[in-house]
Amino acid sequence: MLPNIPYTQYKRVVIVGAGFGGLALAREIAKREDLQVVLIDRNNYHQFQPLFYQVAMAGLEPSSISFPLRKIFQSKKNVHIRITEVRSVNTDRKSVSTDLGEITYDYLVIATGAVTNYFGMKEIEERAIPMKTVSEALALRNRILQNFEDALAVDTDEQRAGLMSVVVVGGGPTGVELSGTLAEMKHFILPKDYPEMDFKAMEIHLLEGSKELLGAMSDESSQRSREYLEKMGVHIHTEQVVTGFDGQFVTTKQGMRIRADNLVWAAGIKANPLNGLNPEVIVRGGRIKVDQYNRVQGYDNIFALGDVAAMQEGEWENGHPQLAQPAIQQGKALAKNVWRVMDGKKAVPFRYKDLGSMATVGRNRAVVDLPFIKFQGFMAWLTWMFVHLISIVGVKNRVLILINWVWNYATYDQSLRLILRPKTIEKIANKDEKNEEVHS
Amino acid sequence: MLPNIPYTQYKRVVIVGAGFGGLALAREIAKREDLQVVLIDRNNYHQFQPLFYQVAMAGLEPSSISFPLRKIFQSKKNVHIRITEVRSVNTDRKSVSTDLGEITYDYLVIATGAVTNYFGMKEIEERAIPMKTVSEALALRNRILQNFEDALAVDTDEQRAGLMSVVVVGGGPTGVELSGTLAEMKHFILPKDYPEMDFKAMEIHLLEGSKELLGAMSDESSQRSREYLEKMGVHIHTEQVVTGFDGQFVTTKQGMRIRADNLVWAAGIKANPLNGLNPEVIVRGGRIKVDQYNRVQGYDNIFALGDVAAMQEGEWENGHPQLAQPAIQQGKALAKNVWRVMDGKKAVPFRYKDLGSMATVGRNRAVVDLPFIKFQGFMAWLTWMFVHLISIVGVKNRVLILINWVWNYATYDQSLRLILRPKTIEKIANKDEKNEEVHS
Repeated sequence: MLPNIPYTQYKRVVIVGAGFGGLALAREIAKREDLQVVLIDRNNYHQFQPLFYQVAMAGLEPSSISFPLRKIFQSKKNVHIRITEVRSVNTDRKSVSTDLGEITYDYLVIATGAVTNYFGMKEIEERAIPMKTVSEALALRNRILQNFEDALAVDTDEQRAGLMSVVVVGGGPTGVELSGTLAEMKHFILPKDYPEMDFKAMEIHLLEGSKELLGAMSDESSQRSREYLEKMGVHIHTEQVVTGFDGQFVTTKQGMRIRADNLVWAAGIKANPLNGLNPEVIVRGGRIKVDQYNRVQGYDNIFALGDVAAMQEGEWENGHPQLAQPAIQQGKALAKNVWRVMDGKKAVPFRYKDLGSMATVGRNRAVVDLPFIKFQGFMAWLTWMFVHLISIVGVKNRVLILINWVWNYATYDQSLRLILRPKTIEKIANKDEKNEEVHS
Repeated sequence: MLPNIPYTQYKRVVIVGAGFGGLALAREIAKREDLQVVLIDRNNYHQFQPLFYQVAMAGLEPSSISFPLRKIFQSKKNVHIRITEVRSVNTDRKSVSTDLGEITYDYLVIATGAVTNYFGMKEIEERAIPMKTVSEALALRNRILQNFEDALAVDTDEQRAGLMSVVVVGGGPTGVELSGTLAEMKHFILPKDYPEMDFKAMEIHLLEGSKELLGAMSDESSQRSREYLEKMGVHIHTEQVVTGFDGQFVTTKQGMRIRADNLVWAAGIKANPLNGLNPEVIVRGGRIKVDQYNRVQGYDNIFALGDVAAMQEGEWENGHPQLAQPAIQQGKALAKNVWRVMDGKKAVPFRYKDLGSMATVGRNRAVVDLPFIKFQGFMAWLTWMFVHLISIVGVKNRVLILINWVWNYATYDQSLRLILRPKTIEKIANKDEKNEEVHS
């Protein structure tokens, strides 16, 4: 295999990762045609993470919140996309080693984001359902629907309750949004599909280690989201740190024990840095220490941004929040700084502009903290929808999401309840492994 | 595991298979509430087979052409759906044995359809891509897209041409529609995504064993579909019977040898009958011989319909064509006959009403044979679209398909080009096998 990227007279910027940060950078920097951009990702699409939970809950299709990278850059002749895994960086040779071979760079930007953090608990890692990729969200959808089919056919009420019940760990936006939507499915959607079943047996628990939900938001938002969820029948347990899950019971450090076959883990992430950097630049949470120009300490031509980077700036002593906004802002700023340096100008230090945060709780309520105003309820929900709709890439995605939302709202229904068979898909799609399967 | 279906005072009709026939029967027969209906399928959704090729070609999402069974029967308290595999029928005990346990019946209807027929050629079965389920169609989409990513990174032009080229075997509607859409992707869509690649290397071959394409249709339609495809650059080889495929070369009995890594097999089906029936009722193509009331020879209370049934009627000496229409008509007729017998009336023999057939060839052309008129071209294409839109189950599916079609037509684009990672989905969704994977 060869990466087959042509050498040109222009400087080559290699960007590893097409999440919010890497994509924002690539779109901006590629505007100048006297730069060659190589964008590397393991998937051929950009994923809109804030709506993963709606894929998991059968409200949206994966394709509505994913956008093919090649489509985004169709008109950009100076952008080369390679779908592959990056193994490490070789700073001496100025190259990254990938499954397609070695790719050299003039500037390297690490935008590899973060992965689920189980804090070393193997038992949980083996059995919990993560929510960090659109494939994982689709898997959660399959799992929950299959559980209900299985629940129809078990011998005891206890087994049935275990299959139907879900424990969500982590009181951040993902945990809150997921448990809210689960509560709605319990009340409005699943009973229509499974009239034979008693839904009292289905329990939804949301566990959070700290004192409150949505700890990064205002007190009003924390308080209101809790009220909304409790009203919807979600059992909220704060100050509970999950320490074990044997597939049937979730246990906490504080002594709780909850019966559920399903544990969704949205309780932590850790940065996903590249191998090959000086270990001293890796700081707390696996993040890469960068200066205010996103430059990695000790390297002239290597940058990091977004979740994987830790920039000390203003009140953000250990780096910015690991969210879409800081990543996008850093990506755009870095592009402009590269241009400035190319033009012999002085680079400008990055300043994060907090645009606020929001979370939705169920069908028509949300909590919104903006810099100038905080509000909750129906108007917050409309705001949440509007902001997410305009943030998503692609006009068609926006149209499809809007139709789905209006449909789901009007009919109290989500119709994407297909349990697809990944085995079949895998067997055919991946011809390389097919022979192995046939022989095994 | 237990099937957990309640016993009632009413007769129980067990329907195996929720394809066109089984679904039509279930919807009709369930209208009478003095019957209990048990509908069994291995998937929790009904699949609209005529549009599989559009899923394979990234034009539609699987969910647009699949419809959750529980949603269809939400309001029907007398319908019990079980998602499981039926292993065999025990005619003495009047039961079918399933992965959920034994399910007894008063009437059994076998609507298990057909599966891909490789005519005993193991080499082809191992390497070819079938098109009989929505999962297989999705796998074909993944495979073709992944091939293009791989083609960017290979060492030689020959490897690249092999990865890009596709041989479609079978000149029926599926083969014609698939190769037409592939030709369009080659000309209009893929070059925009892969500007680095030379698309002359991509060859599309359509192989058919008989003398003409669309053999079941009129001569005009056969002729026109051939002209359309040739104009689009598809290499058509009739009177070529494929006998081998080593993963790089497709060979035929007549001595052709074509370089392509991808072989799509749409060249034959065989019926998929249940084990446990008297072997004498199994006739040509594995179909079950039924009388004109769809009753299986020698059994009072067992019926078969659709692709799996062979009814001698009128000109159809070896059974009706294995298409949606005969299955749907038989399903509706059988429901009414069951009612008649319940009411002490005489059953009415089935008469097939041929409503015609059609196939689409690319972006805006189709061939249509109706009983009273045959036409081809743009009007035929509009007719094809209209008929397929109204045939699909679910208002939302219709809306989404229409939007996708208008979008794709207007933009010359298909935006569903995601390569999803089935391994991740499988690992999480299927908790039972997870431990095995972790240990292996």
